[in-house]
Amino acid sequence: MKAAQFFGARDVRVQDVPNPEPREHEALVAIEWCGICGSDLHEYLLGPLVVPTKERPHPLTGEHLPTTLGHEFCGRIISAPDGSNLSPGQAVMVDPRIYCSKCTRCNVSSTNACVSWGFKGYSGSGGGFSESVAIDAKLCYPLPDSVDLSLAALIEPLAVAWHAVALTGVPDPEWADQSVLILGGGPVGIAHIYVLRAKGCKRIYVSEPTSTRAAQNKDIADLVLNPIKENIGDRCRELTGGDGVDLVVDCAGIQKGMDAGMDAVRYKGMYMNVAAWETPMVVPVVSLMLKELTLKASMAYDDKHFKEAVDAFVAGKFKGLEKMVTSRIYIDDISKNGFDELINNKDEHIKIMVTTHKNRL
Amino acid sequence: MKAAQFFGARDVRVQDVPNPEPREHEALVAIEWCGICGSDLHEYLLGPLVVPTKERPHPLTGEHLPTTLGHEFCGRIISAPDGSNLSPGQAVMVDPRIYCSKCTRCNVSSTNACVSWGFKGYSGSGGGFSESVAIDAKLCYPLPDSVDLSLAALIEPLAVAWHAVALTGVPDPEWADQSVLILGGGPVGIAHIYVLRAKGCKRIYVSEPTSTRAAQNKDIADLVLNPIKENIGDRCRELTGGDGVDLVVDCAGIQKGMDAGMDAVRYKGMYMNVAAWETPMVVPVVSLMLKELTLKASMAYDDKHFKEAVDAFVAGKFKGLEKMVTSRIYIDDISKNGFDELINNKDEHIKIMVTTHKNRL
Repeated sequence: MKAAQFFGARDVRVQDVPNPEPREHEALVAIEWCGICGSDLHEYLLGPLVVPTKERPHPLTGEHLPTTLGHEFCGRIISAPDGSNLSPGQAVMVDPRIYCSKCTRCNVSSTNACVSWGFKGYSGSGGGFSESVAIDAKLCYPLPDSVDLSLAALIEPLAVAWHAVALTGVPDPEWADQSVLILGGGPVGIAHIYVLRAKGCKRIYVSEPTSTRAAQNKDIADLVLNPIKENIGDRCRELTGGDGVDLVVDCAGIQKGMDAGMDAVRYKGMYMNVAAWETPMVVPVVSLMLKELTLKASMAYDDKHFKEAVDAFVAGKFKGLEKMVTSRIYIDDISKNGFDELINNKDEHIKIMVTTHKNRL
Repeated sequence: MKAAQFFGARDVRVQDVPNPEPREHEALVAIEWCGICGSDLHEYLLGPLVVPTKERPHPLTGEHLPTTLGHEFCGRIISAPDGSNLSPGQAVMVDPRIYCSKCTRCNVSSTNACVSWGFKGYSGSGGGFSESVAIDAKLCYPLPDSVDLSLAALIEPLAVAWHAVALTGVPDPEWADQSVLILGGGPVGIAHIYVLRAKGCKRIYVSEPTSTRAAQNKDIADLVLNPIKENIGDRCRELTGGDGVDLVVDCAGIQKGMDAGMDAVRYKGMYMNVAAWETPMVVPVVSLMLKELTLKASMAYDDKHFKEAVDAFVAGKFKGLEKMVTSRIYIDDISKNGFDELINNKDEHIKIMVTTHKNRL
C-alpha cells in the first residue's frame, strides 16, 4: 500500500510498503483523512526529533526511520478482533498513542506520560499518511454515520486542547465566567478556541501579530489583539474590569508572548503552556510571585480526554469547525502541497488534510 | 526611643526617634524580640529595594527612607483601643503587613497581594528593630503566657512557609504520604522543614551544598543531599520507588537548583518557588511538559495562614524550634553583630534575634 515515510529532514517519500497485519487485539482501519500537524512540520524541517533512529529505536515498537508519518486520522474498520464492538464499515476516530500499559504512569491512567510514549505516525507500527493501519481495537472510537468523516480527524488536535483545558481544573459550569487569553492564533490556538467555546467560555481573546491569522481568528474568538500595536496586559485589564484574565493559554512558545501573558493574567490566575519552545522559557518571576500565579503544561491527552473530545465532536459541540480545514490534498503531493506549502504559506493554513483516495478531493 | 533605621546600602543607624502615637484603632506594642530576615540583609546589601525612597514614597504610609527596619517581631501590649481583646501586658505576635483593605485582592482576603502591599519594617510607620510600634489591633495575635516570647518572633518566617505549604493545596491528612525536596537549607528552607513536620510530613529531603548548613539541617530533615557530590534527581527517584518527589520547595533561587528540582519531581508533581531570584528563572520546559508539572510561587502570607502559624506555635507543633536562633544581640550592635555577621559568617547563622533590652541577653 501507499505510505508517506520520513527518511530525514525535508525527505518524505511516498512509497509502497507492506500492508499492515493486525495482531490478535488489533483492528485494521482504512484511513479516510489524516491532518498534517505542526509537529509533523517540525519533524520535516528539523527531524529526526520524535521519529526514532537506528541508534535509538522506539522502546515499544522496536522500529526506527523510515517510519510512516501522520497521527491525526480517522477511517473505517476493515476487520476487527472477535468480541470487539467494531464491525467492518464502522466509522472510527483513532487515538494514535502508543504506550506500555505497565509503567507507574500508565497504571494511574496517565497513558499520555508513559515512560515509553510514542505515536502511530512517528514511532513505527504505521501512521495516518497511508491507506490503512493496524491498531489496538480499544483505541478505535466508533463514530455514528451522522458525523462528517472529512472533519473527524480534527478530533485529534481538539483532544490536545481538550486535555489542556481540562488540566486547568476549572469545572465545566464555571467556564461561562472565565476570561481567557490565547497567545498565538495558529492551529493549536484555534483548536483551543473551539474547545473553550464548546465548554461555554464567553470571553476568548487571542493575541496574534499577523493579519492573516488575525482574520482567521476574528470570527471565532471574541476579540483578536495585536501584540505589536497594543499592550496586551493593559488591554486585558481593560477587558476584565482591571484585574486581568483568568487564564492564559500559550500556543506560541515565544518569550515576548510569555512576558505579555504573565502581565495580562490576574492575581492567582493560571498560565497553561501548550507550545513547544525553541528558546529557553524565562519565567517573569516577579509577576509569578507577587500574583501567586500557577504555571502548568500539558502533554497530548489521556484516554478520558480523548473520549470526551470524541463525544463533544459527535454531539456537534465544535460549531463551524469546517473553517479549520484550509486545504485537502492527495498523498502523492504531500511534500509539495503539504509540507512545503506550510513552510511557504504558513499563516494561510490552519489544517491541511491528506487522503489516499483521489476521488474524495 | 531607639530604632535601627535604614538610610541606604550598608548604612543602618541606631538613633533616637519619636515614640509612636497609636491612632484610634491601633495598639501600642513594646517589642521583645525581632529577627533579622534574609530580605533585611538583601536591603542592607543592595537597598533601597523594598524600602521606599523620596521619589517613590509608600502609597499607604506616605513615608520614605530613613525607615525603621525589622518585620519579624513579637512583644507585649502597652495600650490597646477600647473594645479590643487586648490589655496591657498581654503577649502578642504581630502580623507586620500593611495593606489597603480596599483593592480587589484585599476584598477577596488576599491581603498579601494588596496592590499597595508593604510591611512595618520597610515601608514606614515603624518597625521591629525599635522599642515599640503602633499597629492595628487586629494585627496583634494574643499569645498565652505559656509560650516562649524569645522564640515567638519566629512565627513570622514560619508563616511564610506555612502559606507556601498551604498553597500547594495538599490537604493536611495527606502530608504523611508526601515526599518533599527542599532546595537550599538556609533559614527559609529550615522554616519549611518545621512547617512540613508540623503538618505530619515524614519524608523531607534537603539539597544543600555547604557542610555547615548541612549540619544544621541534619537533625531536623530526614536526609540532607549534597548537590555537588550527588545527582539529586537520581537520589530522589531512589528514595521514592523510582517516581521522584511529590513536591519541590525552592528556597534557593538558583538555576542549578531548579534544573535538579525539576528533574527530581515526579510526574504531575509540584514545584513551589519561595525564593527571590537574582538571575532569570529558566524553566526546563521539556520536564514541565512531559511530566505535566505545576509551578507555583508564594508571596508572604495572608490573614488565615498567619493565624494558623500562630495557632501551631501556641500548640507546640514546631518542635525543637530553639535551634533556629543562632545568636541574640543588642540593637546598638545590629550592623556589626547582625548584618555584617550575616555577610561574613552567613552559613553559620539561621536566625539572629535583636532586642532593645540589654537585660534579656
